[in-house]
Amino acid sequence: MISEIVAVGTELVSGQALDTNSQWLSRSLAALGIPVHFHTSVGDDLAENVEVLRIAAGRADLVVTSGGLGPTQDDLTREALAAVAGVPLVEDAGSLAAIAAMFARRNRPMVERNRVQALRPEGAEPIPNSCGSAPGIWMTVGRARVACLPGVPIELKAMFREGVEPRLRALGAGSRFIVHRKINLFGRGESEIEKDAFDLTARGRKPEVGITASEATISFRITGEGATEAEASASLGPTVAAIYERFAPLIVGEGAEDVVDALIRALGRAGTTIAVAESCTGGLIAQQITARPDVSGVFPGGVVSYANAAKVDLLGVPPDLLARHGAVSAEVAEAMAVGVRNRFRAGVGLAVTGIAGPSGGTPEKPVGLVYLGLATAVAVESRRLDLGPEQPREVIQRRSAKAAMNWARLEVQGVV
Amino acid sequence: MISEIVAVGTELVSGQALDTNSQWLSRSLAALGIPVHFHTSVGDDLAENVEVLRIAAGRADLVVTSGGLGPTQDDLTREALAAVAGVPLVEDAGSLAAIAAMFARRNRPMVERNRVQALRPEGAEPIPNSCGSAPGIWMTVGRARVACLPGVPIELKAMFREGVEPRLRALGAGSRFIVHRKINLFGRGESEIEKDAFDLTARGRKPEVGITASEATISFRITGEGATEAEASASLGPTVAAIYERFAPLIVGEGAEDVVDALIRALGRAGTTIAVAESCTGGLIAQQITARPDVSGVFPGGVVSYANAAKVDLLGVPPDLLARHGAVSAEVAEAMAVGVRNRFRAGVGLAVTGIAGPSGGTPEKPVGLVYLGLATAVAVESRRLDLGPEQPREVIQRRSAKAAMNWARLEVQGVV
Repeated sequence: MISEIVAVGTELVSGQALDTNSQWLSRSLAALGIPVHFHTSVGDDLAENVEVLRIAAGRADLVVTSGGLGPTQDDLTREALAAVAGVPLVEDAGSLAAIAAMFARRNRPMVERNRVQALRPEGAEPIPNSCGSAPGIWMTVGRARVACLPGVPIELKAMFREGVEPRLRALGAGSRFIVHRKINLFGRGESEIEKDAFDLTARGRKPEVGITASEATISFRITGEGATEAEASASLGPTVAAIYERFAPLIVGEGAEDVVDALIRALGRAGTTIAVAESCTGGLIAQQITARPDVSGVFPGGVVSYANAAKVDLLGVPPDLLARHGAVSAEVAEAMAVGVRNRFRAGVGLAVTGIAGPSGGTPEKPVGLVYLGLATAVAVESRRLDLGPEQPREVIQRRSAKAAMNWARLEVQGVV
Repeated sequence: MISEIVAVGTELVSGQALDTNSQWLSRSLAALGIPVHFHTSVGDDLAENVEVLRIAAGRADLVVTSGGLGPTQDDLTREALAAVAGVPLVEDAGSLAAIAAMFARRNRPMVERNRVQALRPEGAEPIPNSCGSAPGIWMTVGRARVACLPGVPIELKAMFREGVEPRLRALGAGSRFIVHRKINLFGRGESEIEKDAFDLTARGRKPEVGITASEATISFRITGEGATEAEASASLGPTVAAIYERFAPLIVGEGAEDVVDALIRALGRAGTTIAVAESCTGGLIAQQITARPDVSGVFPGGVVSYANAAKVDLLGVPPDLLARHGAVSAEVAEAMAVGVRNRFRAGVGLAVTGIAGPSGGTPEKPVGLVYLGLATAVAVESRRLDLGPEQPREVIQRRSAKAAMNWARLEVQGVV
């Protein structure tokens, strides 16, 4: 079974938007053992959509499209697919009811135009959309199966998993299993880590091990295969064990897990809680912790003390400490950590104060200077980071947040 | 003149690499007044490359390819283009000398394999490569001009500027300018907005207006052209004016600007400040505000009151209010807004409390139920949102944050 991906939208061919859906779809199809031979992007033009779909359905066994399923006049995928299949569009009663129900749930009026989203080519099956209004389409056109998904990434991903993957498995896909494991490390540089893993990352070695870096998190990506999922997974075993053995304290998790997850897990295991006082990270640490579900047992909350007055009023930082050392100092970081720990009655208080830039730096305290503070029942400490001054604001904020959470994680685990 | 872009490489169709060259080429061609109608990516397979190039040269006046010009066996663009044109490959003496000179300059041995990079289809012109070894190709195939460039972005960009753009200008391109504007709206659904803009988004209208939606922000994308950049910009004028006239209170900004920027701008103009109390959004509002530089004049800070005790201790929410109405209630949202406004001595207090899920919902208070609170010197109000229960946690958090900031923006602007 070979496949082709078609992305629809004038914003893609005009260069105004970057097509990331096709990459995600290619990876997801590869994981099912279905190679992708072509990507095509086409604008919101009916004749060109018909042409692209006709070519794709003529040379691939599976065509997956993204985009063009919205309610507006330039959403043409339904119409184009019907034209290629040579069938009329019909209204799907189930889809119409689902769309109406979604609008009702959100207490928003459903306008006539939304009805077009319930249309499907005759003979096609709708693919339900659990997080938006546009249902997808599943249809056989000639020898090809065609799956049409919306362009909104979160909807596309959910609908591929729930509506397309099961249909492909039913057709026999996924019989040769390819498995990946991704082990994420934080706290050392990529080349240092690779030096201690040279034998593992050698080319031609099985299973294959790659190293990638993203925002200072270094990941080993291990790929194995087998006739069964168990066989494929088992092939990774010794390599995974070697990585854990060599790098244990640096490992923060697997897959999508990062420092945040490692901290939450460490807090849960230790039966303690953390409160955060954020100045230059402006709520980023709290936001990343609370982006995970079920954290109320380990995270009572935090204070974003952007103004100096807030450091005094809400965290109890002594005004003379601010006057003597400045807001960006080891002393204030420690006082913030102690203050937030007390105010939230938490096990650990974590604080970040620094200069994220681009303005606000001085020769003594340049952009990128950040102090972390950590308070527990028995100790108060601070650490200095120099992350700038050439780095953009976002990078300084993200790196500070990561470094702070990693320090707290190691502290809670009793490693430091 | 219409154009098509072809990107060559198995790493692209397999999803291992993201194709960013095609976006860059699309923008560069648009700036020359040459619209791009298709993007195609194809793997390192000769027959498929021939097929893709044949289709492209049959429907476009200009085809620009990236990749497949290196020295290895899977670099097939030269061969594929010669096959489509029906001519043999010949060695280009000038290219061979340039390649040899480059190796000599870098003190690296030139192996026999590198000679293939000097091959070109008979009748084609080489495009010199000033920063790498692979020359490009310029050729007429049927009615189409074909430009082949390497896949390395830095080489591709330099060679487009130096070798392709002058040839396109000689053919009359660049005499028309294409400009885009993107106006972003928040607070109403895509189809509701389109209903009031049906005349603007009609197909075939000039300038062209498209509508796209991303996380409940609806964008008008207006494309105009003219003989000069000024003329192209001016052609958008009446359409842009019509959009501002009809949708002014919904407009949050242009280009990359969103609700956050609109709120910061409104606060700055009004000379006031905002403090935020976040429960279910967990710091997301503070993080988004502080992701922008230079906000300390409008944002003193916030409290992430994840635990009920934090609502009492840090925000002064009366414990009996929590006991009577629960943390997710209009009463608590208002008390949080008042509390945070007082604690930070801010002009506006904004609060969010809700159930982001996936657990924690009940029949009376389901996942997706969110209350916003807004306090100013003269009023305290609350609003209820129903965003779930089928939505993922991330969507509920992001929508709540957006809705809250948009309400505050309208309040500060005196619209509500």
